[in-house]
This record gives sequence, structure tokens and C-alpha cells, in this order.
Amino acid sequence: MEKRMNASIISIGDELLIGQVVNTNAAWLAQQLNLIGIYVNRIIIIPDKMEDILYTLKNISGKCQLAIITGGMGPTKDDITKYSLCEFLNTKLVFSEPVFENIKTIFSKRNIPVSDTNRKQAEVPEVCEIIMNDFGTAPGLWFTKSDTVFVALPGVPFEMEGIVSNRLIPKLTSYFKPPYIIHKTIHIQGIPESHLSDMLEEWERGVKESGLSLAYLPQPGIVKLRISGVADDLQKMQTLINSKITSLQSIVPDDIFGYDNDTLESVVGELLKQKGRTLAAAESCTGGKIATMLTSVPGSSQYFIGSVVAYSNDVKINTLSVNPYNINKYGAVSQQVVEEMAKGILRFFNSDYAVATSGIAGPDGGTPEKPVGTVWIAVASADKLHSKKFIFGNLRDVNITRASVTALNMLRKLISDLKPD
Amino acid sequence: MEKRMNASIISIGDELLIGQVVNTNAAWLAQQLNLIGIYVNRIIIIPDKMEDILYTLKNISGKCQLAIITGGMGPTKDDITKYSLCEFLNTKLVFSEPVFENIKTIFSKRNIPVSDTNRKQAEVPEVCEIIMNDFGTAPGLWFTKSDTVFVALPGVPFEMEGIVSNRLIPKLTSYFKPPYIIHKTIHIQGIPESHLSDMLEEWERGVKESGLSLAYLPQPGIVKLRISGVADDLQKMQTLINSKITSLQSIVPDDIFGYDNDTLESVVGELLKQKGRTLAAAESCTGGKIATMLTSVPGSSQYFIGSVVAYSNDVKINTLSVNPYNINKYGAVSQQVVEEMAKGILRFFNSDYAVATSGIAGPDGGTPEKPVGTVWIAVASADKLHSKKFIFGNLRDVNITRASVTALNMLRKLISDLKPD
Repeated sequence: MEKRMNASIISIGDELLIGQVVNTNAAWLAQQLNLIGIYVNRIIIIPDKMEDILYTLKNISGKCQLAIITGGMGPTKDDITKYSLCEFLNTKLVFSEPVFENIKTIFSKRNIPVSDTNRKQAEVPEVCEIIMNDFGTAPGLWFTKSDTVFVALPGVPFEMEGIVSNRLIPKLTSYFKPPYIIHKTIHIQGIPESHLSDMLEEWERGVKESGLSLAYLPQPGIVKLRISGVADDLQKMQTLINSKITSLQSIVPDDIFGYDNDTLESVVGELLKQKGRTLAAAESCTGGKIATMLTSVPGSSQYFIGSVVAYSNDVKINTLSVNPYNINKYGAVSQQVVEEMAKGILRFFNSDYAVATSGIAGPDGGTPEKPVGTVWIAVASADKLHSKKFIFGNLRDVNITRASVTALNMLRKLISDLKPD
Repeated sequence: MEKRMNASIISIGDELLIGQVVNTNAAWLAQQLNLIGIYVNRIIIIPDKMEDILYTLKNISGKCQLAIITGGMGPTKDDITKYSLCEFLNTKLVFSEPVFENIKTIFSKRNIPVSDTNRKQAEVPEVCEIIMNDFGTAPGLWFTKSDTVFVALPGVPFEMEGIVSNRLIPKLTSYFKPPYIIHKTIHIQGIPESHLSDMLEEWERGVKESGLSLAYLPQPGIVKLRISGVADDLQKMQTLINSKITSLQSIVPDDIFGYDNDTLESVVGELLKQKGRTLAAAESCTGGKIATMLTSVPGSSQYFIGSVVAYSNDVKINTLSVNPYNINKYGAVSQQVVEEMAKGILRFFNSDYAVATSGIAGPDGGTPEKPVGTVWIAVASADKLHSKKFIFGNLRDVNITRASVTALNMLRKLISDLKPD
């Protein structure tokens, strides 16, 4: 376990040093490297200044096996990483035909002419190997100095992530041949982290006694458990981890909604596809988030008919056929209204399943009886209707997310014929 | 410009190096320091290991005026910052009566007895000055070495933030008497970074010749420009920056949509509120994202009536009154259909303004004629209708985001009576 590979991440960008942008790139990169058995033991943020870049590169080289640099690779004048690399490597920029072809392809797709500035992006330090960028114009660069492999990547998150997932991870794996690290992530909705931790105390002890490590990864409404093991014998490790998952399933049988890259929206989508059924949504407080999550899945048009974001009472009444008497008597955030919304959207879009939300996301609109964070959720099919009240917290965006994932999990249980909460 | 104060932030914690926790502490701290004219020129994340902590402290001391350390100050076994400081300062831990009093007060409020572990938290390195923690048991520590002021703080965000706001900022201001730093960010939609950079070449030169610095901060569909300046005379600097913004406005008059904390959804919301008008959306390829963005703004129920996520053609025909003949002849992703969607939702929700999207977000569904990334967007009011075709890229989530911000900017222009693109 201790002969693990060490890596450094160097994030370049003034915006990170004034706190305008949080360094999510480094956290994401560290996760990806960990998954292939490379441990990050230093993350450094420095400004877009050649002096600082050179000082850091010199200081790092020879001290770790891998150093990944992000940022400052764009076409503008404050992007000086490429020039700093030339200085560091005592080399010069040369024009790369393949990179220029990539730039031309991207621009022709967008129907934009290629400017001189874009042409300059095809210049790369002579001694660097190019890692193509399928999502933007700035390529990744790979070189070795004092036994440290350096990789420079653009800082735009989706470009960086695209290059890393598609190109860099396979390249690193074949280059370094790190030991197998197996991770298995189990996703649980609806049980708070501290409760789950109490429920799993004994199971957790067993996991650790087997030489596996365990991490709780909480996010709004969801807790992910990640089991990790380092192995020479892949088969044996897989069997061990599977046995731990089987025992976990017996403790929280209905609350595990997926594994690894599953999401609630992908799991609900799979269930609907398998059963050949359709879904519609009526969203008040979630404001379109449930539809956004469902439609983030490629191919969701097969089962997702659509959603009505019913922000005003008029829409609830006219489109979803909610009884105005119930809105007056019980309020828009009530069991009566949310159930009528679910039944209304089921009829309106003629779908097999429906989900509806109505709540007070905040920061305004709370009352002593219905504080900010109060959310009613209903799920329905032709012959079933189930609704439940939740009281989340004070933060608008967290409330919207928690309501959306909770609604999708209620849907999952309804479609799977599991008992509702 | 160069005589500004330099600070380093050292974040200690294994959880930051495996990407389990994003380093929001450092971003927050950097913002706070910037506001009082202290510039952070290095942020370093290191593990909970004495060897790494000592190496970093030695490396930093004498190289900056201020170094702030966060993390590893708690009561558990992996919290070793205090012991590392003793080693670094060649000193020993001594019991602090005021810190112990603070611990006792906190525990008595929570009705918990004080344990031996808690008593140990009252031990501090002998040469350190104590900065009291009003929100937890671990105090802040202040000491000087090789002309660098070091401050060690607990890593729990609300404790760290509490100590910094209440105690550290006033102490730093009176100790260092730093100059002012002013930042102003300008948000632009619809001009790619490289084109913008070409358009602004001369303006950019002028900004830098005035002693200001400039950064491009791109994100999908949006470029943010940040101007920064260090000043002894706040008024004069503000005037200088304003004059640069005025000249920028004359170069890209219609494309700047906001400043600093503005977002497209907040700007569109403000315009609607000012004019007392309402808005509705009909979303196909954006799948609810426009509604999600609009409803992320508190108080959006004042002007946002709702949205129909029209993922199926049936919904386009039955709810939005799109002519099925046009869907057959031109396809769902076409000018005819997106314009009918916009007019349809305007009537259906009886709103003053409407926006509609129809496109191929990918990864499937593209054709040679209409590749993945093709998106039609329409905006409408009672007497105006404007639509435009865009070809974005290959990534589903980026296409959805770019289509959504572009649609909101077309709406902004329509509501502001600016000429459409």
C-alpha cells in the first residue's frame, strides 16, 4: 500500500487565487487519479505569471512521478503556460498541423472563421507530445523532465475532463501500470449520513477488518459509500467486495438505488425502458430541475413525455386541473394540491407514471406552520397515488436538489413496486 | 502594482487530496484577504503528515508576508498541525487557561461533559499568540518566523470563517495596513473567447498600460472579463476602472449582460420585474434547464409563469399547437417548429414574453444535415418573433447549457429592445 505512485497537481490561474473560482478541477482530477491507483500528495495553485510557473515546475520536477498542470492554455494574452513550458524545457513553439486541423474542424462545425489567434493555438512546444482535445482548441501536452512525467491541460472544466477521461487515463494506465485499485460505490437515497453511519457500524467494522477502506461521500439527499481495495489478485478482491455489498443490501434493502455511475435519473429511465412505460412531471418548487435531471440522460425522449413547470396557481388550475377551492383552503403547498397536480399531469400528458412537487424553496415565503424547506411530493400511476411531506433546510438550491432526488427515488420505488416510505 | 502584500494559504487534509472535499475554505479565505488588499499568490494543499507540513512551512517562511494554515487542529489522532508547529518553532505545548475556559463554556451550552481529549485541545505551542474561537474548541494561533506572519486556523468551515471575520481581519488590517485591491467583472454572452480577444486587443493594451490587470474567465456560452487594480486612492482607482468599462461598452455595446454577481437569469428577472411583465418557456432540447435557471432566483414566481418541457412531438402538437405538417416537412428541429412553439407557449400561458428551444443535444440523433449540437432558439412577444440556428458541440450537457444561456440572452435583448443577433 505504501509503494504507491505520487502525483502533484499544479493549477494555474489568478481567478483561483482571488477566490472567484473554486478549484473543482483539482478535486475532480485527484478523484480520477485515485481511481487508477495514483495518489495526489500535493495540490498547488499559482498565478498566471511565468516567474511563479517556472519556480514551481523546477521545484516539483524529480520529486514526484507525475505532475499535472491545468490552466493558462487558452488563446488570450494572460494564457502563458505554453510560453513558460518553452522556457522551462529550453525549447521553442512549433506549428502543429494535426492540432490546427482539429481547430479548423471545431470552428467549421460552429460556422465561425478561423482567426490568427486561433491559428496561434496550434503552436506547441517542440519537445512535447500532443494529447488531442476533442472538446476544444487547446491541446494537452505531455513531456518528461528529471524522471517526472508532466502533463499540461486546458483549465476549462469540460475540456479538461474530456481529455482526461478519453485520452489521459488510458495513457497513464499503460505508461505507469499502477497496481489494481478497485472501487465500488453504492448510492443510497433518503437516509441521513449520521443515521446511516449508526445503522452500518458493525458492517463498517467488518469491511475495515477485511483490509478494505470505506468512505462516506454525502451530497444533498444522497449518501454514496465507496469501498476501495488494492489488489494483486483482481478476482479475489472483486469477490470480497461483492460479499460486503451483499451484506449491506440485507441491512438497507430498499434504499440502495444504484452503483458506481448510476444516477437516480438513469435508474428511473432504465426501469421505464424495461417496462415500456412513460413518465411526466408537474413541478412547482423544483422549477424544472426534475425534468432537467431526467433529460440529462441520452435517449430519455423514449420514456419522458414532458413536464409542466407550474410556477403560478393559474397554471396549476388551468393546465393541471387543480381545484381552486383546495388551493384556497389548504394552500398550494399541501397534500391535496400536490396529489391533484400528479393526477392532473398524468391525464394531461396521458403518461403511465407521474411525479409532482409543491414546496417553499426559500429564502422567502415561509410561515410558522409551513417553514422554508417544506415540500410535498406525490407520485402516481393509473391505479396508485402516494404523497409525502418533507421538511428540508434553509438553502434554496439545496432544497430544490433534495426535493428533486427525493421525488425521483419515490418514483423508482413506485415503478419497482417497492413499498413507499 | 508590485508593492502589494503577498500571502500564502496552506490547506492541510487528506480528504482534499483524494478529491472527496473541494477546497472551498481557500477560495473563501482568498476572497476575504483580497478585500483588505492582501493578495494570495499561492495555495498549497498537503496531507496530514508532519514531514510534509514541516517541508512546506520551511519552504514558505521568509517568502511571503503572511501564511495562513487551515486544518488538522481538531482533537482526533490525524490532527497533527499543533505538534508540527512545535517542531517547526522548536517549542513545546503549554496549557492555556483562557482556551480551556472557552472549551468549558461551549460544552456546558451543549450539556456535554468535558473529556480528557477536550482538555488536550487547550494545549497550545508556547510561543504562539492565541486567537480565540467563538464557534468551536480549537483556537487560532499567530506567530512570526523569518519575517513571515503565520496564522493557523481550524479547518471546519464555519469555525474558520467565524474566527477570520470576527478576529483575524481586524487584526491583519491593523498589523499590515494594506492597500486597496479592486476587482470588477464584466459578463459577455455570445462571443467566443478567441474572437473577443481579437476584438479587444487595443482596449486590452490600454487596460494594462494603465497599470490594471485583466483576466478572461470562460465558461460554456459566457466569457467573463475581470479587471483588477491595486490602489492607495480608492476613488481614483474606481474612476480609472469605470473609464475602461465605458470604453469596453462602446466596443461590445449589446453583448455585455451584467457585472460582478449578475447572472443571465437574475438580469432577465430584473428586467421583467422593472417592466411588470411575465415570461413562459417551451423547452425541447434544453429539457427544463431554462426553467431551472430562472427559478433558481429567489422571487422568480413574480414574473415566471411556467414552462412546458415538450420532449415528445405529441406535446408540441397538443399543448403548444405546433402544426404536425411542419414537424413532418421540416422536422422538430427547425425554424418553423421552434417559432410555433414560442407562439404556442405565449398563448397557452398567456405571458408577455416567451422562449422556445428545439435541438439535438446528443450524443445520438444527429444527421449529416443536422449534426449533434444543432439548436434552434426562438423568442417572442405579442408583436415580435425572432429565431436563430446555432451549432454547438458534441457534449450533451455543454450543449444544453450553451443553448440555455444563449436563449436567456436572446430574451434579454428582446425585453431590452436591443437588435437581435
